[in-house]
Amino acid sequence: MKLAMIGLGKMGINLTENLIRNEHQVVAFDLNEDSKKAAEKLGAEVGTSLEDTISKLDETKIVWVMLPAGKPTNSTIDQLSKLLNKGDIVIDGGNSFYEDSLRHNEILKAAEINFFDCGTSGGMSGANRDGNFMIGGDDKQVFEYIEPIFKGISQKDGYLYTGKAGSGHYLKMVHNGIEYGMMQAIAEGFDVLEHSKFDYDNEAVAKVWSNGSVIRGWLMELAESAFSKDANLDEIKGVMHSSGEGKWTLDEALKEQVPTPVIALSLMMRYRSMEDDTFTGKVVAALRNEFGGHDVDKK
Amino acid sequence: MKLAMIGLGKMGINLTENLIRNEHQVVAFDLNEDSKKAAEKLGAEVGTSLEDTISKLDETKIVWVMLPAGKPTNSTIDQLSKLLNKGDIVIDGGNSFYEDSLRHNEILKAAEINFFDCGTSGGMSGANRDGNFMIGGDDKQVFEYIEPIFKGISQKDGYLYTGKAGSGHYLKMVHNGIEYGMMQAIAEGFDVLEHSKFDYDNEAVAKVWSNGSVIRGWLMELAESAFSKDANLDEIKGVMHSSGEGKWTLDEALKEQVPTPVIALSLMMRYRSMEDDTFTGKVVAALRNEFGGHDVDKK
Repeated sequence: MKLAMIGLGKMGINLTENLIRNEHQVVAFDLNEDSKKAAEKLGAEVGTSLEDTISKLDETKIVWVMLPAGKPTNSTIDQLSKLLNKGDIVIDGGNSFYEDSLRHNEILKAAEINFFDCGTSGGMSGANRDGNFMIGGDDKQVFEYIEPIFKGISQKDGYLYTGKAGSGHYLKMVHNGIEYGMMQAIAEGFDVLEHSKFDYDNEAVAKVWSNGSVIRGWLMELAESAFSKDANLDEIKGVMHSSGEGKWTLDEALKEQVPTPVIALSLMMRYRSMEDDTFTGKVVAALRNEFGGHDVDKK
Repeated sequence: MKLAMIGLGKMGINLTENLIRNEHQVVAFDLNEDSKKAAEKLGAEVGTSLEDTISKLDETKIVWVMLPAGKPTNSTIDQLSKLLNKGDIVIDGGNSFYEDSLRHNEILKAAEINFFDCGTSGGMSGANRDGNFMIGGDDKQVFEYIEPIFKGISQKDGYLYTGKAGSGHYLKMVHNGIEYGMMQAIAEGFDVLEHSKFDYDNEAVAKVWSNGSVIRGWLMELAESAFSKDANLDEIKGVMHSSGEGKWTLDEALKEQVPTPVIALSLMMRYRSMEDDTFTGKVVAALRNEFGGHDVDKK
């Protein structure tokens, strides 16, 4: 099929390559000229503007938006609601908050444009080959029309029509919440090993755990890869950034009153890692000093 | 090689089958006669007693103990320290606490018997084929002598000599601690989905997450299998038993002052699940009533 790819960052450029390898025609667009050149090299047509990009599509235009969540995605979808026509199709493959996706669905539905919120997993390598996609959208028949796009670029059984609009990004959000907890669990285990009286080779441990153990999986294989490059991760700091989806999962859990201590603590440990020192620490130290005369560490 | 298998429970019987398939000779022993008959059917010789079992082994006797951790293992190893001779080899493949293994190592070492503490992962299916083994023991050369045993019965790259005695069971302990956290994270995610406004098919979700997503792995495949049999797990209660290794991991983390909130909370949530009601809940409810007149739920 022929479709537009809006956004040629780490994910968009890999998806473009994946789509072309699977014999789809891609009209690529990005504000960055170098990214467009890279897409052209992969065999994509490129557009000079969003309008021009869309003009190069056939009837029943399909536009895949692969931009950072929030403003870039929101404003692009606003524009598309004006540029596209009845029956056209917008896929948001980014990490939009599902309530934004519900709003995008309303905006596009008002113009009789079909919207699909597509959670994308599998990282950059998955975007490039054997990806993972969770796709929500109100009209299942329209999903079946675009299904051939997902079939080729996914891992076998690696895409799912998840139901109504919003459900794809919601599922991806929860997927990331689980990911936070799994990563924190793995990391805590290696931290215990690091403090133990035994002398473990982190890479060898991650490797043996990746092959036949109960905790085998892609994250453990990635740990093996990381330790193979830097045996004790001496080259990096333990600062854990986050980009929202863990927090959204916790927000949802709080809204629905679901006890999710592991996801919550994984997020809190990320926040803790962003701070060199904490005000919490100062308050507790000061209180111990107040009631018990316990020493404080002076600044 | 020829070796004895002491203990023919879920793990021991599967290991026996795995060993025989890999052309090792097994002399099997269990107190249960039916288990011995099952082992015989698989092609094992059987012993009438621990002593008789050992008498059927060749020089440099190798005895694999596959019993519940604690008393059954401890008393068997005590007996073996008297029955075996200098240069013989004991492998404890069970889930012994690593400090017990250190003690077993001392007991056997005093009789110049070689001891290996072998953490076994991969569940029953792994015991039967493509298993996962983490093996500690003071003498690496003796490990190399028994290495052919592990080569065939393991997943490729699925066994590791972990160093000094105790390090195998320690690593398996931490593996289980990680497992607690990963399982709790996965479960919390499905719990959020269950409470969401969307209508997800748990099996389909576990399936798509098993194929190409970042959180793919064996535990997700097992979730798919469980949901395939009971779509919303209506047939079981959410009571999470535990058999010690999560607690031991937390004990170690506390001893070494390693912050492991996810492993800790995973364990606490297991304990919480064992209680229908909690005294904590009563105390908090009573206090809210005391200071604010807030309603309590009467028994």
